[in-house]
Amino acid sequence: MQIAVVLFEGFTSLDAIGPYETLQHIPGAETVFVAARTGPVRNDSGSLALVADRTFEEVPRPDIFVVPGGPDMTPQTTDPVLLDWVRAADRESTWTTSVCTGSLVLAAAGLLTGRRATSHWLALEQLREAGAEPTGDRVVMDGKYVTAAGVSSGIDMGLTLVGRIAGDRRAQSVQLLLEYDPQPPYDAGSPEKAPADLVAEWRSVSA
Amino acid sequence: MQIAVVLFEGFTSLDAIGPYETLQHIPGAETVFVAARTGPVRNDSGSLALVADRTFEEVPRPDIFVVPGGPDMTPQTTDPVLLDWVRAADRESTWTTSVCTGSLVLAAAGLLTGRRATSHWLALEQLREAGAEPTGDRVVMDGKYVTAAGVSSGIDMGLTLVGRIAGDRRAQSVQLLLEYDPQPPYDAGSPEKAPADLVAEWRSVSA
Repeated sequence: MQIAVVLFEGFTSLDAIGPYETLQHIPGAETVFVAARTGPVRNDSGSLALVADRTFEEVPRPDIFVVPGGPDMTPQTTDPVLLDWVRAADRESTWTTSVCTGSLVLAAAGLLTGRRATSHWLALEQLREAGAEPTGDRVVMDGKYVTAAGVSSGIDMGLTLVGRIAGDRRAQSVQLLLEYDPQPPYDAGSPEKAPADLVAEWRSVSA
Repeated sequence: MQIAVVLFEGFTSLDAIGPYETLQHIPGAETVFVAARTGPVRNDSGSLALVADRTFEEVPRPDIFVVPGGPDMTPQTTDPVLLDWVRAADRESTWTTSVCTGSLVLAAAGLLTGRRATSHWLALEQLREAGAEPTGDRVVMDGKYVTAAGVSSGIDMGLTLVGRIAGDRRAQSVQLLLEYDPQPPYDAGSPEKAPADLVAEWRSVSA
């Protein structure tokens, strides 16, 4: 089983690492970071670079692929090389997945039309405009399409998929290994829970 | 304010990325990945490489530094170059931190002797043998020494520190941005919660 994590300039690192750190523990899985070119790929703030070890051409048929998001996905949702690869990979994938605004890439590739899906809470309207039916759930499965909400939700998506693919026991084993027993010091992780003025502030910044 | 995230061959990626993705949002913070040499540094499974942009020599006095862990820390806890840097950096740091078995490096450098600290649940005894006083808490603060439990706990540590440094409101803002409203599909994230046979299995593998 081959799992491809897509990289592009401006990605959000935790979007990619959450699914990576969970899915790589599926027995027999080979996990590869792919991009248009091999080599370092900078994240959204520019202070981190992850290495793409393979080009898209070298990984044409992953069993699973993950598209992370980033603050501005316009370059990706209009990139014919990326969209062509996503469409071709999707034709033979077992699971086609995204985290955060990565779902805007799946939608731009035409894969989410009429499907239930999710994205970062700030991008749900944009996801709707791209043809999907956004839900407020943290991990949304519609057939083989699995989309996760913002950034950190990729960990929950990854564990969910490990359970589907390798069984509940394996997923619990991975959760224990990662000591994923979250204890956030605040309860502000969603627009429903965070102080209203913070929600409004982010909405105005991103508008 | 300069924040250094330490890299070394065999690190666990989420150990480094959890604190990175939270702490980098402290206003005015410059975050850098440091290692003995610049360039790609492979993780524990070898399928991921993060780029170290600076050498230890180039970052002698970070305000905060984070030491991630990995499955086998013997090379790091016996590496004089790493330990010398950790001791020197600690002399002027505001916060000295670790995630997972990264605390074994802080302990090997002599920084945790007699201090309350934590580590991956499988390494708590090793941490005690190294002179610290392990607690079962997910994030442990003893003076300026902040240690987090296994892997994913670095996110909770990062948010805790953002709150201490930049205020609760900023930390809540970061939590909202990262949509950190965890909903693990299982409740097996600690040895107290996971099925006993899984706990025993990991203990036997790591013994």
